[in-house]
Amino acid sequence: MAESKLDLTLDGPALTARLVDFPSVSGNEEALADAIEEALRDLPHLTVERHGNNVVARTGLGRGERVVLAGHIDTVPIADNVPSRLDEDGVLWGCGTSDMKSGVAVQLRIAATVPEPNRDLTFIFYDNEEVAADLNGLGHVAQAHPDWLEGDFAILLEPSDGQVEGGCQGTLRVLLRMAGERAHSARSWMGSNAIHGAAPILARLAAYEPRRPVIDGLEYREGLNAVGIEGGVATNVIPDACTVVVNFRYAPDRSPEEAVAHVHEVFADCGVTEFVVDDHSGAAMPGLSHPAAAAFMKAVGGSAQPKFGWTDVSRFGALGVPAVNYGPGNPLLAHKRDERVDTELITHCEERLRSWLTS
Amino acid sequence: MAESKLDLTLDGPALTARLVDFPSVSGNEEALADAIEEALRDLPHLTVERHGNNVVARTGLGRGERVVLAGHIDTVPIADNVPSRLDEDGVLWGCGTSDMKSGVAVQLRIAATVPEPNRDLTFIFYDNEEVAADLNGLGHVAQAHPDWLEGDFAILLEPSDGQVEGGCQGTLRVLLRMAGERAHSARSWMGSNAIHGAAPILARLAAYEPRRPVIDGLEYREGLNAVGIEGGVATNVIPDACTVVVNFRYAPDRSPEEAVAHVHEVFADCGVTEFVVDDHSGAAMPGLSHPAAAAFMKAVGGSAQPKFGWTDVSRFGALGVPAVNYGPGNPLLAHKRDERVDTELITHCEERLRSWLTS
Repeated sequence: MAESKLDLTLDGPALTARLVDFPSVSGNEEALADAIEEALRDLPHLTVERHGNNVVARTGLGRGERVVLAGHIDTVPIADNVPSRLDEDGVLWGCGTSDMKSGVAVQLRIAATVPEPNRDLTFIFYDNEEVAADLNGLGHVAQAHPDWLEGDFAILLEPSDGQVEGGCQGTLRVLLRMAGERAHSARSWMGSNAIHGAAPILARLAAYEPRRPVIDGLEYREGLNAVGIEGGVATNVIPDACTVVVNFRYAPDRSPEEAVAHVHEVFADCGVTEFVVDDHSGAAMPGLSHPAAAAFMKAVGGSAQPKFGWTDVSRFGALGVPAVNYGPGNPLLAHKRDERVDTELITHCEERLRSWLTS
Repeated sequence: MAESKLDLTLDGPALTARLVDFPSVSGNEEALADAIEEALRDLPHLTVERHGNNVVARTGLGRGERVVLAGHIDTVPIADNVPSRLDEDGVLWGCGTSDMKSGVAVQLRIAATVPEPNRDLTFIFYDNEEVAADLNGLGHVAQAHPDWLEGDFAILLEPSDGQVEGGCQGTLRVLLRMAGERAHSARSWMGSNAIHGAAPILARLAAYEPRRPVIDGLEYREGLNAVGIEGGVATNVIPDACTVVVNFRYAPDRSPEEAVAHVHEVFADCGVTEFVVDDHSGAAMPGLSHPAAAAFMKAVGGSAQPKFGWTDVSRFGALGVPAVNYGPGNPLLAHKRDERVDTELITHCEERLRSWLTS
């Protein structure tokens, strides 16, 4: 069936259009994963593996370094914006043009056109990035086959407007529960007010001075914030419970364990009844001091920016692989009905990567 | 129709049973109000007025003092506990036995048997006490005919186990709203955290030292408490709003205006964006230093207790009439399926009141 075949001799913009016209909303990636696997198996310099709808292809040239190029193949639901449309200004419109079939096209173009790279390459195409974290294909591969993700440096081709965003901060959500004792509010001395008990927690948060550590030349900015607070039984009852939901965004020089220990320490003497780690995703080092990364930065030009938000690069961080975001899409256009990509940036990214991997 | 006629020559316990067997759940008091009005109109020493299903009867003897005896005629919904049942121990069981048809029986007995009291008397029978405050018959009468409630001293015959409970504390509910500015929690410095903004409010509450003023020999206990707190948009958003719901229970030496001013002052420099008085019911002075009250205390014996919770005596307080709770029911049995009253207490209360009003 001609429809299902991917032609990797198309140029980056044309291949992006082809991928956009091959719908793969989260949960429906199988046909696209099949097509990618088939196209990669035609390339004799690559060893291809598959886990679910995740496809991994690797060179085995025995180079001194290995670089990972990763991208997700799913999109958010289509919003009357497929098939793609190329306008007279060279802008390609459609669901996934920016996030991130243009990045996937660059991965596939490098896979097809650089048979003898100066660093060994691993290409990862994964599913379910746009949905719940526990469905994420990169997470599944990391769990089932951590060796497939091994490398000295990883590039996630998520939309970054052709700029390098280094590492990512971790995010830890903790529930701080205070307990008290109910009583009628007309006889408040018979009870113990759990909301009043939370006063030291809020005081600690309000006074907290976040760090701004410089790591590999990038200045990160931490933050410790209440993102929710809840307490109260009825308007005539002294409340016996109050919960403060705290979000700690932390720089990649802290391990997940250190981050938890830090939050514990901040609220150590606040009388917290229960400390619950509700959600936790670690940080990732930018690794820009690594020789491969330095060469990469030189090839792509410009200066890297720190990544404050959490992204899948953290999954590499957890495996000890420094990682950056670098892709042709524009993050501000992701998930929008008028999603689009400047095709010049697709070509530019592909050329920069090829130059780095062949020079 | 014999069924609808009230015989005020029955003794207190028998009249209570008769009233209990005359169902008058809130909203369905008309037939009972009719019967009470009819019975009172048969008494030549009383002038009878009616407003809705509220009946007011007064002597006009030109005495130096006027005493108000008030009670509500409605009950909570019946729970398989009507008709009433008198057991071998002299305990009368049934809906409203305690709260407060035994008190209403005492009112009616005094009205019928004390034609020439030593103080002028006003009897008030009102509806809708067990439901929303805006339906309360005593409130409606206070608004439409405040002169009907005039007096030097008022007794509300609510269940108080035959003890005198003096006055009542006021209750004020205030919403303290804090405003901030939303931002992604990965870039918290772009926003302003409204929950952190509430830190000084909780600190002030936790440090607050409530007064325990002695008024007319009764020690009241104030309380300023958070009874609710709410804030948060999503777990990755710096919240732009936080509301603390504060309940101030205050002693009857503060006016409602002074109570609001006090709460304003407590939080004056906490950066509160909006201060909303959400609900407010004033306090009532016990008035035990008034000569009529002193004589009343002497007649009933025992020592008065302060009333911490809010009750309808506050409606007299608002009119400048000192008031107490004093009734034969047991407040702990009110609204219960096994509601009951010790008939000895009905007789005791009636005798104490008669003794006071005739000595």
